[in-house]
Amino acid sequence: MTLSQAVLDRDRLALARLLTRVENNTDEGRAALDELFPHTGKAHLIGITGAPGTGKSTLVNQLALHYRKDGDKRVAIVAVDPSSPFTGGAVLGDRVRMRDLSGDRDVFIRSMATRGSLGGLAQTTAAVVQVFDAAGFDVILIETVGAGQAEVDIARLAHTTLVVEAPGLGDDIQAIKAGILEIADILVINKADRPGVESTERALRGMLELARQTQRVFHHHGQRMVVPAQEPKEESPLWVAEIKRTVAKDGEGVPELVEAIARHVAFLRESGEWISRERAQLQSTLDALIQERLVSRFRADIAPQHYEDALSKMMRRSLSPWKAVELLMNGRKK
Amino acid sequence: MTLSQAVLDRDRLALARLLTRVENNTDEGRAALDELFPHTGKAHLIGITGAPGTGKSTLVNQLALHYRKDGDKRVAIVAVDPSSPFTGGAVLGDRVRMRDLSGDRDVFIRSMATRGSLGGLAQTTAAVVQVFDAAGFDVILIETVGAGQAEVDIARLAHTTLVVEAPGLGDDIQAIKAGILEIADILVINKADRPGVESTERALRGMLELARQTQRVFHHHGQRMVVPAQEPKEESPLWVAEIKRTVAKDGEGVPELVEAIARHVAFLRESGEWISRERAQLQSTLDALIQERLVSRFRADIAPQHYEDALSKMMRRSLSPWKAVELLMNGRKK
Repeated sequence: MTLSQAVLDRDRLALARLLTRVENNTDEGRAALDELFPHTGKAHLIGITGAPGTGKSTLVNQLALHYRKDGDKRVAIVAVDPSSPFTGGAVLGDRVRMRDLSGDRDVFIRSMATRGSLGGLAQTTAAVVQVFDAAGFDVILIETVGAGQAEVDIARLAHTTLVVEAPGLGDDIQAIKAGILEIADILVINKADRPGVESTERALRGMLELARQTQRVFHHHGQRMVVPAQEPKEESPLWVAEIKRTVAKDGEGVPELVEAIARHVAFLRESGEWISRERAQLQSTLDALIQERLVSRFRADIAPQHYEDALSKMMRRSLSPWKAVELLMNGRKK
Repeated sequence: MTLSQAVLDRDRLALARLLTRVENNTDEGRAALDELFPHTGKAHLIGITGAPGTGKSTLVNQLALHYRKDGDKRVAIVAVDPSSPFTGGAVLGDRVRMRDLSGDRDVFIRSMATRGSLGGLAQTTAAVVQVFDAAGFDVILIETVGAGQAEVDIARLAHTTLVVEAPGLGDDIQAIKAGILEIADILVINKADRPGVESTERALRGMLELARQTQRVFHHHGQRMVVPAQEPKEESPLWVAEIKRTVAKDGEGVPELVEAIARHVAFLRESGEWISRERAQLQSTLDALIQERLVSRFRADIAPQHYEDALSKMMRRSLSPWKAVELLMNGRKK
């Protein structure tokens, strides 16, 4: 039996093995992704992002428990840590999680650290998510740390994006960024039993309101677009980000959060956004593969000495990078 | 007179105009970069990164003032904010800076927000830095917010990378990441007049020590490599990250920090690392341009209908992305 067949048959060991091959981008991993592809497109992908200290991991845990118990869903958790480029940094989080979720064969947790370039991380995450999707996981929780471009890229992968905040995390103007607000379908104020929750919610509402007055967020071909409010696009469906309070450590507010997520799914389905997002996601996968293939074919077509010569001339500033590209493109074997 | 000639003649208005064209990736911007390229390769690029609330911007200000007054250097500041994908978020920071540095014709400040993909951000930053380099700025301070892959990519661009911490920013294990330590040439504990500075320094020393015992960081062809300590690479030059305390708002510790930066430059020059890093940087520019050219040529070669057909079949799961690439590569006009 092939590895991908074993994964379709819900063999957990085969799943773990295949994920490693997919992460390492081996030929076997790629062949399996190809075989699994017809079985994808069913899962609901939920992205969860937010600064360290907001209790994201605990919230992800609680969401997983809730989907298991109340929805009888099979749940996968993908924990992506883009701030750890060299070493796997999410191990501790896994241990903590294991206590609540271990022994449940319908939960699978996978940690990923950045190992290559960022494009690589977003693409690898997409591939890992495809494996879980084909393996019959209904809900895939994709957790990322921070507020950088990695989160934005990974948010594009998800159907629903939660941005997690917590009271008193700093009055720094940079703590709550407009850019992060714009990727949020649902804003979660976790640790809502802490002092300052009112002012955090007020600040978030104020920023949402400001954004609503000065710009319109709408969806177009699966991309979230932001335009000045002066240019109305009446035909576009509009989702207004909801704000939810939770105390994840006690499970408080989690059922209400799950309801908000369900409302967002209904919006995506009714507006046609679900299909648009899927199309955008598949297109970005296709484009990345095309690019990869073109570059590897180019490398095979060019004499290494020509490339080195061009680089040496660039070092001496006698050839600009743009001229070097012309030279190399024209110097290909065919 | 061309725009690039005006920039070489130190015309500030021309510089501002050209930067906009370069950021927007216009043909005129590219032509000017090509013309300016022979004049690049002189500036010292210093990357400054760290979490919000560490006082990075104030520190960058103080470094700029110090290089102006004590070194008579021309200083450019590039403030990159990858957490703001849609809106320019660095405007407030600029205003604050202007008070100290305005009126000085040998200081130029430019803010950039992420507008495209992250690869795009690193490449655009590299292009902006090239313009400043050609325009005769001796020191280019590249400030980034956060601790994500964007910072790692931009750190690769810099000769010297400062990672800024502050006491009491959170005991969260994620606050000081191993990955970020690994990109630091110099660790700066800013706001060193605050309580907790001792324990922050102890924590940083501990993590550096641990890293030193378990892994070796060395340089190889301009890339920082991390290997287990068991595999010695005796021939490789080694820089041990320094820890410096500052109180940027009062300028305290800034002269000592500047001395540490000068030691790092001496290390880079003596070890040959300066040239290796430059080579690695030029190579990444060349590779990005090659990739871009290949993709745009491919798009011109393929019938849009073929591409759309492939995507529709992918949506129906009857064609995998890998098979779609084969189909499209073989279906090119030539």
